[in-house]
Amino acid sequence: MRLSDLQTPALLVAAADLEHNLATMASALPGERLRPHVKAHKCTELARRQLQHGHHRFTCATIREVEGMAAAGLGEDLMLANEVVDATRLGKVVAAGARVTLAVDSATTVEAAVTGGVREVVIDVNVGLPRCGIDPSEAGKLADLARRKGLEVRGVMGYEGHVVGLEEASTRAQMVKPCMELLLRAHSDVGGELISAGGTGTYALNTWANEIQAGSYALMDTAYSKLGLPFRPALSVLATVISVSSGWAVADCGLKALGMDHGNPTVPGGSVWFCSDEHITFASDTDVKVGDRVRVLPAHVDPTVAYHETLHVVEGDEVVEVWPVDLRGW
Amino acid sequence: MRLSDLQTPALLVAAADLEHNLATMASALPGERLRPHVKAHKCTELARRQLQHGHHRFTCATIREVEGMAAAGLGEDLMLANEVVDATRLGKVVAAGARVTLAVDSATTVEAAVTGGVREVVIDVNVGLPRCGIDPSEAGKLADLARRKGLEVRGVMGYEGHVVGLEEASTRAQMVKPCMELLLRAHSDVGGELISAGGTGTYALNTWANEIQAGSYALMDTAYSKLGLPFRPALSVLATVISVSSGWAVADCGLKALGMDHGNPTVPGGSVWFCSDEHITFASDTDVKVGDRVRVLPAHVDPTVAYHETLHVVEGDEVVEVWPVDLRGW
Repeated sequence: MRLSDLQTPALLVAAADLEHNLATMASALPGERLRPHVKAHKCTELARRQLQHGHHRFTCATIREVEGMAAAGLGEDLMLANEVVDATRLGKVVAAGARVTLAVDSATTVEAAVTGGVREVVIDVNVGLPRCGIDPSEAGKLADLARRKGLEVRGVMGYEGHVVGLEEASTRAQMVKPCMELLLRAHSDVGGELISAGGTGTYALNTWANEIQAGSYALMDTAYSKLGLPFRPALSVLATVISVSSGWAVADCGLKALGMDHGNPTVPGGSVWFCSDEHITFASDTDVKVGDRVRVLPAHVDPTVAYHETLHVVEGDEVVEVWPVDLRGW
Repeated sequence: MRLSDLQTPALLVAAADLEHNLATMASALPGERLRPHVKAHKCTELARRQLQHGHHRFTCATIREVEGMAAAGLGEDLMLANEVVDATRLGKVVAAGARVTLAVDSATTVEAAVTGGVREVVIDVNVGLPRCGIDPSEAGKLADLARRKGLEVRGVMGYEGHVVGLEEASTRAQMVKPCMELLLRAHSDVGGELISAGGTGTYALNTWANEIQAGSYALMDTAYSKLGLPFRPALSVLATVISVSSGWAVADCGLKALGMDHGNPTVPGGSVWFCSDEHITFASDTDVKVGDRVRVLPAHVDPTVAYHETLHVVEGDEVVEVWPVDLRGW
């Protein structure tokens, strides 16, 4: 199949850039030093490529991601890096033979793990991002509670999400340290093998955690591209120009094909004016005509992929593989 | 099924508010005066309710929406209010017995209609929004071309998308007029029964078009709620509080459950700080605890619905119907 055969909008992954990104990360953080986050690509076939690069533990954000990874035979060591109040479906995944470790940050979520049939947890610690995670000083007590309830506590996790996207590397480096000092303090009370943290923006700076939960590095987006990381933009949305007016053109890639929380996407060689549900209006530096194809680069990979059913892996104009985005939904 | 049985995040539609919205619109614009736009809800069951309220012609934004509406037996008169350069799939829908009218704004898209097997078109006219649509002065010539190629030209469409969302009703009224004067001028050159335009924000002000393409009125969102229209917010995302810290709480409804192009959603009785992929961090005016359920009101209905597989129709705490969001994708 060739690119010209694809219906648009269509999600494309450049095979060579993906391979570069996977190899670069596997060299920096080999094997268990990386626990790739599947939320960024929601695709078990892509996760399989990460496994081939040596990473056999994975991070998930939703129950559906855990179920899908286990069903695809990738359930050797899955961490749901998120709290749930009903772990029944996770318990079924465990009963079916996969290993699932669940984040907990309260007595209620510990109870949910027990009731749902999950046997292993990590204590989720707040390291500065106002989101989930227990106060570091309370982490030891929660671990004690979990152990009393019969759970295996594998360690701690603490996501420095307020740091990973900062453009200046020196600022990122400066800010990771106090976050991880909080996590290590919690870990000294909690114990366990795992100190899990980090993301694509801090994968090389966070030397305190013993596993990094990066996900965006595989596909990248224009937001992360500003950070000067050694990963290449591998993801784009192929769109067809459907209308040309004096001063602008319109292609068929809109709000329902793009995560928009980080702002407008980019059209190389053009300037994006705005997006509508099914349109992108842009001014092009060169002449475009109706029927031309353009590549739209999303600002944020995760919510972009979540809109699409399929990833098309391409080499030049050839579609070499078609991967279902099979971890969508909840 | 009760609300408490639902996995979250879950898309909810309040049955009474939906019925109010459908009845209010059907009373203002009965029958063929409204051509409901299905892009806002992507749900054939909801379209069926619009049919029961007397509207039997529908507007679509994608080929998949046309296919799905026809397959559901709702293909009496479907307009694809968008340009395509490959109309083959539409031609198949026509061959199977549905009526499909396709928007065209260039010789290339006219040719696509002919080649693809579509028999009826409308001339899409630019009335001020920098998107699709031919210059009004060129509309007649394009209609002539289409007729020479054997197509039936049913009239014109021209979407005043730069006006529908303006908060001041007087500004909207003032701005619709020149847009529709352009459309009527084009129509005088094009001819045909249809003068199709408008949206939820101008449904009552646009008295020039003879059919209005409103879609958002059925479910509404916080952006349209600012306009003081007689439609009620009927859509929300049910979320579960999964973590509570000193000063904020976190629920499981994030960027992958919400269209974010119009900004943050709203949590009644709370103040939203930010959304992450699977989280909403908010400060609540009242005490919340882990396991509580909250309703998140999206800022933009269309790209929100497009993330979900199911609409749950609710009366109080009872889920009375479950409708698949069956028109997603392309």
